[in-house]
Amino acid sequence: MLELRLVQGSLLKKVMEALKDLVTDANFDCSATGFSLQAMDSSHVALVALLLRSEGFEHYRCDRNLSMGMNLNNMSKMLKCAGNDDIITIKADDGSDTVTFMFESPTQDKIADFEMKLMDIDSEHLGIPEAEYHAIVRMPSSEFARICKDLSSIGDTVVISVTKEGVKFSTRGDIGTANIVCRQNSTVDKPEEATVIEMNEPVSLTFALRYMNSFTKATPLSNTVTISLSSELPVVVEYKIAEMGYVRFYLAPKIEEDEEETNP
Amino acid sequence: MLELRLVQGSLLKKVMEALKDLVTDANFDCSATGFSLQAMDSSHVALVALLLRSEGFEHYRCDRNLSMGMNLNNMSKMLKCAGNDDIITIKADDGSDTVTFMFESPTQDKIADFEMKLMDIDSEHLGIPEAEYHAIVRMPSSEFARICKDLSSIGDTVVISVTKEGVKFSTRGDIGTANIVCRQNSTVDKPEEATVIEMNEPVSLTFALRYMNSFTKATPLSNTVTISLSSELPVVVEYKIAEMGYVRFYLAPKIEEDEEETNP
Amino acid sequence: MLELRLVQGSLLKKVMEALKDLVTDANFDCSATGFSLQAMDSSHVALVALLLRSEGFEHYRCDRNLSMGMNLNNMSKMLKCAGNDDIITIKADDGSDTVTFMFESPTQDKIADFEMKLMDIDSEHLGIPEAEYHAIVRMPSSEFARICKDLSSIGDTVVISVTKEGVKFSTRGDIGTANIVCRQNSTVDKPEEATVIEMNEPVSLTFALRYMNSFTKATPLSNTVTISLSSELPVVVEYKIAEMGYVRFYLAPKIEEDEEETNP
Repeated sequence: MLELRLVQGSLLKKVMEALKDLVTDANFDCSATGFSLQAMDSSHVALVALLLRSEGFEHYRCDRNLSMGMNLNNMSKMLKCAGNDDIITIKADDGSDTVTFMFESPTQDKIADFEMKLMDIDSEHLGIPEAEYHAIVRMPSSEFARICKDLSSIGDTVVISVTKEGVKFSTRGDIGTANIVCRQNSTVDKPEEATVIEMNEPVSLTFALRYMNSFTKATPLSNTVTISLSSELPVVVEYKIAEMGYVRFYLAPKIEEDEEETNP
Repeated sequence: MLELRLVQGSLLKKVMEALKDLVTDANFDCSATGFSLQAMDSSHVALVALLLRSEGFEHYRCDRNLSMGMNLNNMSKMLKCAGNDDIITIKADDGSDTVTFMFESPTQDKIADFEMKLMDIDSEHLGIPEAEYHAIVRMPSSEFARICKDLSSIGDTVVISVTKEGVKFSTRGDIGTANIVCRQNSTVDKPEEATVIEMNEPVSLTFALRYMNSFTKATPLSNTVTISLSSELPVVVEYKIAEMGYVRFYLAPKIEEDEEETNP
Repeated sequence: MLELRLVQGSLLKKVMEALKDLVTDANFDCSATGFSLQAMDSSHVALVALLLRSEGFEHYRCDRNLSMGMNLNNMSKMLKCAGNDDIITIKADDGSDTVTFMFESPTQDKIADFEMKLMDIDSEHLGIPEAEYHAIVRMPSSEFARICKDLSSIGDTVVISVTKEGVKFSTRGDIGTANIVCRQNSTVDKPEEATVIEMNEPVSLTFALRYMNSFTKATPLSNTVTISLSSELPVVVEYKIAEMGYVRFYLAPKIEEDEEETNP
């Protein structure tokens, strides 16, 4: 039997908004340690990993490990019916082919339960090794989202270049070129507005803006985003979920061959 | 001659928004007692009744009973041109084939008059007898609107079941089932947030959500909605218009034969 | 070499929003006196003139007169990437076929530069003589925008009639007629809310609402709009840009022959 009670139900709604455009169907894995998901996007280019640790739930009961295949679009439809202040409980009986989402209003005057059919989904869990990164950038998540959106109006790819001074986002397209530099500024009043760079060696990598823009759907989950870059590894774009876990997106860099030709 | 002056002009704008998606053309009836309308929706399934009593108008002159056929979409286009604080006057000369809507800004610096052609519309006025209902539910109108909208993302019909404890709204669809229970709670701080149930006997009826959602376009007219249910009668969904009258929607229940089959 | 630094960068964003739907490609002319543009709309019916005087820039360097052909849609895409509080600098080297827009955030922590290709555009500069107008109406720009939008839901053209008492905007269409009168009211508390009429002789002219609605895209630039009317001249719809200049739209009146026939 599974029963996970999350007082801050709006968090689960935000998680769904962050994932549903990227992932269609996925297995949610429940164990004693937490509620998690790992899935490739539908075009098999990006990887998403979600973790909500058991300590973050008001009540967390998971008698045995359980993998529940869900259609994220349908799950999102149901969770949208929860009020932003509602307490959400996820329930499943052993061996059942359904999962129930229960929404309780703060006053307990309105109780909703939505039962969704589960699916059988083939998936293999990839071990993602902890790695050393050449550079790690922490910056305001809204700033990162704005930059990805702005550059998309000019080009299709973004070059992210990190030096000690700052991080540069560049693109080029038919109408021209764009460069946006964010300087390291750890001395701002509010820590969540800082841009902080940890760098072992300079790095410059190219990514598809389409995926970056999908990742920024997770912006409401966290004030800051952490971008970990290494020339031999996929970039990790991480949104921490306060006191509970994270959503992480992995994307391999593009190999640019003929990009340089168009440079003057 | 007809001259109806309504200080709270925004009210007439809200009435049009409540009706125009449901009713295309209709006769507005003016008499000494008030300004009213009764019309079937365009698919002849739901009935709408509007009453604005003469006492609610600042000035109300109606020399003889008059029935004015109007296209509600065109009328809505004109009323949208009134400011929210404007005073609206409806004017018609005897025998004229037009009606004039006059909008005066609060400062009287801007005066608009919109003249609209009237139409000949065949209609018969149905006598709607006062009836006894098995159960009458009064609840916040925004809550009812939210529930109808939420359930529409899961299924096409809603089962409304009333017991002494509360009212339950249920639906089922391809992706699963949903049940939302609102408990009777007459002891809230603000009376307009109460859910109050008057019940003679339990009742459980099924309705098309499409129509319910249309009815909730009247939500801006009133903080509360009253739902009157009886197994042999159409449901009445009523939005009171403060000190003036009401908009009432009537809808026959669906006869459910094969609904039960899919129940486990 | 050209370098124009505008502290209030949002102003340039508003100018682009005002022009881009009307004008596709145009030459921006830079001289010691200011940054200006004159262009016909793409259907060659309306004329637009923009002036931003050099005094309004924090820094203004223009070594020699320069005409830069730009696609306004592309320019708008780039300027949309500037934050509303950003300082915008326009830069061009002598003989270069590109222009650079630099955006600096108020904290200087984010610096963006967008480089756009210039175009060769044939254009002739029309001398617009200063003229005497029969009537000049100054009114709140938001009120004018609202009236043009409202009348568009009824008809395609607007008759603007000015008398000493006020200005009347009229239209007619399939569903009826509309008249909106704004009275002269120079004694309001806030000068920008006044409607002020300077009149030598009464005037009544007809214009295409489609163009008037395009002109009102400039509404965010100024609280007031000035409409200058004369029976032999195009109307001038002017939005002043505080301490810098203006955007002016010119539109020839329609000759109405058969309009009167439909009058009773």
